[in-house]
Parts: sequence; structure tokens; C-alpha cells
Amino acid sequence: MRAAAYAGNGTMSIVDSPESAPDTDEVQIDVAYVGLCGTDLHILHGHMDARVTMPAIIGHEMSGTIAAVGAGVDGWRVGDAVTVMPLAWDGSCPACLEGNEHICQNLDFIGIDSPGALQGRWNVPASTLVRLPDSLDLRVAALAEPVAVAVHDVRRGEVRPGDRVVVLGGGPIGLLIASVARTEGADVRIVELDAGRSEVARGLGFAVIDPREQDQRAVVEQWTGGAGADVVFEVSGAAAAALGATSLAKVRGTIVIVAIHPDPRPLDLQRVFWRELRILGARVYQRQDFERAVDLLEQGAIPHETIITGVEPLTATQVAFEKLQSGGAMKILVDVQAGDRK
Amino acid sequence: MRAAAYAGNGTMSIVDSPESAPDTDEVQIDVAYVGLCGTDLHILHGHMDARVTMPAIIGHEMSGTIAAVGAGVDGWRVGDAVTVMPLAWDGSCPACLEGNEHICQNLDFIGIDSPGALQGRWNVPASTLVRLPDSLDLRVAALAEPVAVAVHDVRRGEVRPGDRVVVLGGGPIGLLIASVARTEGADVRIVELDAGRSEVARGLGFAVIDPREQDQRAVVEQWTGGAGADVVFEVSGAAAAALGATSLAKVRGTIVIVAIHPDPRPLDLQRVFWRELRILGARVYQRQDFERAVDLLEQGAIPHETIITGVEPLTATQVAFEKLQSGGAMKILVDVQAGDRK
Repeated sequence: MRAAAYAGNGTMSIVDSPESAPDTDEVQIDVAYVGLCGTDLHILHGHMDARVTMPAIIGHEMSGTIAAVGAGVDGWRVGDAVTVMPLAWDGSCPACLEGNEHICQNLDFIGIDSPGALQGRWNVPASTLVRLPDSLDLRVAALAEPVAVAVHDVRRGEVRPGDRVVVLGGGPIGLLIASVARTEGADVRIVELDAGRSEVARGLGFAVIDPREQDQRAVVEQWTGGAGADVVFEVSGAAAAALGATSLAKVRGTIVIVAIHPDPRPLDLQRVFWRELRILGARVYQRQDFERAVDLLEQGAIPHETIITGVEPLTATQVAFEKLQSGGAMKILVDVQAGDRK
Repeated sequence: MRAAAYAGNGTMSIVDSPESAPDTDEVQIDVAYVGLCGTDLHILHGHMDARVTMPAIIGHEMSGTIAAVGAGVDGWRVGDAVTVMPLAWDGSCPACLEGNEHICQNLDFIGIDSPGALQGRWNVPASTLVRLPDSLDLRVAALAEPVAVAVHDVRRGEVRPGDRVVVLGGGPIGLLIASVARTEGADVRIVELDAGRSEVARGLGFAVIDPREQDQRAVVEQWTGGAGADVVFEVSGAAAAALGATSLAKVRGTIVIVAIHPDPRPLDLQRVFWRELRILGARVYQRQDFERAVDLLEQGAIPHETIITGVEPLTATQVAFEKLQSGGAMKILVDVQAGDRK
């Protein structure tokens, strides 16, 4: 079978990879679609060479159908539509023992630390499977993983109906968080600098603040009657956004750190103290987030038409990455069947 | 009556201040002891001249007995021993309307924003009174306010029996937080650079880490079996402590920001994200914290002999401040009766 593998030097190679039967606790999946994300782009750019084993078949956002079932697997049948929650934990570290398996101290993130979905047939532990309803288009279902991220972030921030929420950054995850928060009954504002992304966000019905044109703090104060926002999501990764986030939150408000900030960022701890703010890290997801994500996709609550800006065949994975980096792209899917099957 | 007032230029003047009958909702207190704290020192050094009205009778940590009761006050009698929770809120701002009156957006901090306890007879709203048991020495009771700060911080951090707690900074508030956390059943380590303060902390039975001599992260990892601390209190105000705090907390652990950090501080947001940490600001106290503080003082759970390192008469308030700034002092009390009464 064909697979797309990162082989260093910024290239994805199309390789012929041996197909193997699933182990006793595994299933084999006919992969349908794989979404590419910022982490995949980091891998392609060589930023994670210390973590991946080359040639690395990556990809962790996907949909597909079961092709074969291991001897020890119950509850799954050939033909079942599935997505994968790509986490494998050790079950024995202090984090796992306290019930935080999703951020196990020795987490194996499938598709980064072990082989991913950019291959025709992918073997995964049956424990990672999440059922997809037959009515859900597999193209749309490939968004389950990033939607699960957004669901986790919104749940972590304890967004309540009527809450006023600010999302710093209007990329794919920012738009998904905004969409999920709106589904929870929140009133949402997005802070974004890029004109194209702002237009997309407005097209989805979100008010957008450009902090170069408006005093974002004054806008939020006015909007909230002098209180400040209930929850602020930092999704941009920008130092200025992290510094400004504390000024937007109400007394005892919450700031959720979703973005990767590779370097330490100046933070206004005086404001954290003064307003008794709460800053929460939010990473990946738990099973309930994945299941909720699938429900939201099935209900049509996620603007998938806007989020999915392109689909390329497996053989054009390199092109898919180039499109992802180009201006205007949100989510690019790889159609694994088009490149490999038949 | 005599009072000690900040009059600018780093000086506390002893002034003759007119005595007035309490208003209908007030009581008049014969002030016994007033504790001096870091905020008072900031005022003396002119750092808060924009906030205080000179001459400023300051002082907000105190004990005393009721000398007169306003016509509209119920439940209090002349001679009752009391301390004061020195907060007055507007009751109408967004923070108050959500039940966070203690950090009202227009908070009047009595003793800073309005006259304080460094006077023979002090009129305060009856709503600020907290009853003291007759068995509690008024000298010890003057610690109620800083102990209430520590109780609030520990409550905010949700410290549970068996928790492993790190306190960054072994000054008066750090020692009080450590003492309160220990009373809650926590195992506590204190990080402190100063040799004198370390010795005091060890004398109270706390293990102390000097991060110049030991890798504090490695020490905490070893102590906690690779997990990290449940709760870390940042009480030092040092940039390095804030940066290092995130490395000491377990997955989903809590960091409580107690100290004043006047400038933005670099924070490891990557660690906040990776471990899903929680950072909480903690400021002042609520009534239940004050009542618990009085209980703890009465039970002898607070090492008041160690915390109170000196007592000066009101007429020597300037000397008291000088002692507070000198090496080795923890808490200096002003004996208001010795300087003013009879």
C-alpha cells in the first residue's frame, strides 16, 4: 500500500509500505480522509526531528472504515465507520493514576510518536476507536479531532450559556472554539489581525476585533458593561496576545491557554492577582470530547464547509502541505483512497 | 487622641487627631495593636502617593475593644474584643453582583484608601467587625488579617489533606501559608534564599530548599515520586520564582499567585499547556477566611511567637518601620495604647 512519509528536508515522500494484519487488540482501518494541522507542518519543517522516527508516516486527524478486526477485539465489525482518538497512555504514571490519562507523562501521540494515518490501511488499538454515525460524510468526519480539541478547550474553560467569550486568533482552532462556544450559548468575539481570516470569521457571524484599529480592552469593557469577558481563549501563540489576555477577563474570569508558546511569555501577574483570574492550560482531549465532537459534526453545528478549504489525493500530500501554508487556507484534507485504493 | 500618619518624605508623624463619635452604622474601637506589613512600607516609601490622602493615618492589621456603638448597630457591645476586616465594597459593580465583593472593582481598602488603625480610637462600619474570643491575647489577635490572607490563599488553592505543597518565599505571608497548609494536612516545602529566613522556617519544622544549592525541580520531583507538587504558592515576588513555579507543579497542578509582581513576568506557558496547569490569583480574603484565621490563632495553630518579632509604642511608629525593614524582622506590632492612652 501507499503511504506519505516525512523523510526530512521538508519533503513528504510517497512510499510503498508493507501492509500487516492487525494484532489481537487492534483493528485495521481503510483510511478515507486525513486532515493536516500545524503540528504536521512543524514536523515537515524539521522542528520535531528529535521526536519523530524517519521515514515518519504522520497524520492524526482522520476518518475511515474498519477493514479487519483483531482476534481479541469485541464490539467492532468490518465496515464500521470510525475515527481515532490518537492517544496511547501508559496507565501507570502519576498523571494517569489521577485520571488524567489524556496528558499521561509518557503519552504516545499516535501519528507523531508512532505511525499515523497517511497510509491506505492503518492498524490502531481498538481502544482508540470512536464510532461515526453512518449518516456522517467521511470528509466532514475527518474534522473530529480538531473539533474535539475545541470541545475540550471550551469544557476546560467551563463556558456557560450567556457567557461572553473572547477568542484570540481566528485560525482553524480559533474558529472551532468560537463555534463550539456559540453552540454552548456563549456570545463570542474573535480578535484577529489577518484580513482574510477576519472576513471568514465575519462570514460565520462572529464579530471581529482588530487590535491595531480598536482598543480591544475598551471594546470588551463596553461590550460587557464594564465587567470583562467570562472566558478568554489564547489560540494565537503571539506574545502580545498572551500579555493582553489578562486585561480582557472579568474578576475571577478564566483564560485558557490553547496555543503553543515555545518561549516564556511576559504575563501581567499583577492583573492575575488583582482580579483573582484563573489561567488554565488545555491540551488534546478526552473520550467524551471526541464523542461530543462527532455529535456536533452530525448536528451540523460546525461550519465544515468553511473550515475545509481543500482536498488533495495522497500522492499530492506535498501539494496539500504547500496549500496549508499558503494564505487563506484553513484545513486541507488528504484523500487517502484517491491516491492509493483501487 | 494621638495618631501616626504618613506625611510624605518617608516619615510617619505623630499627630493629634480629633476624636469623633461613631456614625449610626459604626462602632468606635479602642485600638490595641496594629501590625505593619509590606504594603504599609510601600506607602511609607512614597510608592502609593497617588492612592493615599496625606496626612494618611494607615494601618489595617489590628485588634482592639469596642469603646462606643452607633445608634443603628445591633449585636455589638462596649468592651467586645474585635478585629476588623478592612474592606468596603460598593455592592453594585459587576464583581460584587457576582458575589466577589472582596475584590470589588471599586474596593475601599480601609487603612489605605480611607483612615486606618494607627490611632487611639478608630471608627469603622460595624459590618467590618470580626469577633475575637476573650481568651485570645490581643497581641496575637493582631495577626488575624495576615492569617486571613494565608487562609484565603490556601482555600483558593484547594489544598487537601496529603497534598504536597511548595511555598516560594519564606517571609511572614509565606510562613503563614505554610502553617495554614500544614494545618490542612499538607506536606510543605519552602523555597527561600535568605539564610536567616530559612533558619526561622526550619525552626518551625519546615524543610527548606535553597535553589542556588539544589535543583529545586529535581528535589520536588524526587519528593513527589516524579509527579510534581499539588499546589505551589508564589509569595516571593521574584521573576525567577514565577518562571520556575510552573516546573514544580504536577499535571493539572495549581499555582497560586499571592505576591505583587509590578512588572509583567516571563511565564512558561508551554508548561502550562503541556501539563494543563491552573494558575490562580489570590487577593485579600472573605469573611469566612477571617473567622477561620481567628479560630486558628485561638487554637494555637499559628506560630505567633516566631512571626511577631517586635512591639513598639505608637510614638515610635517610625522606629517600628525601621525595624520592619531591617534584616531578620518578620512582623512588628505597634502598641497603640502604650503610646496614646492614659
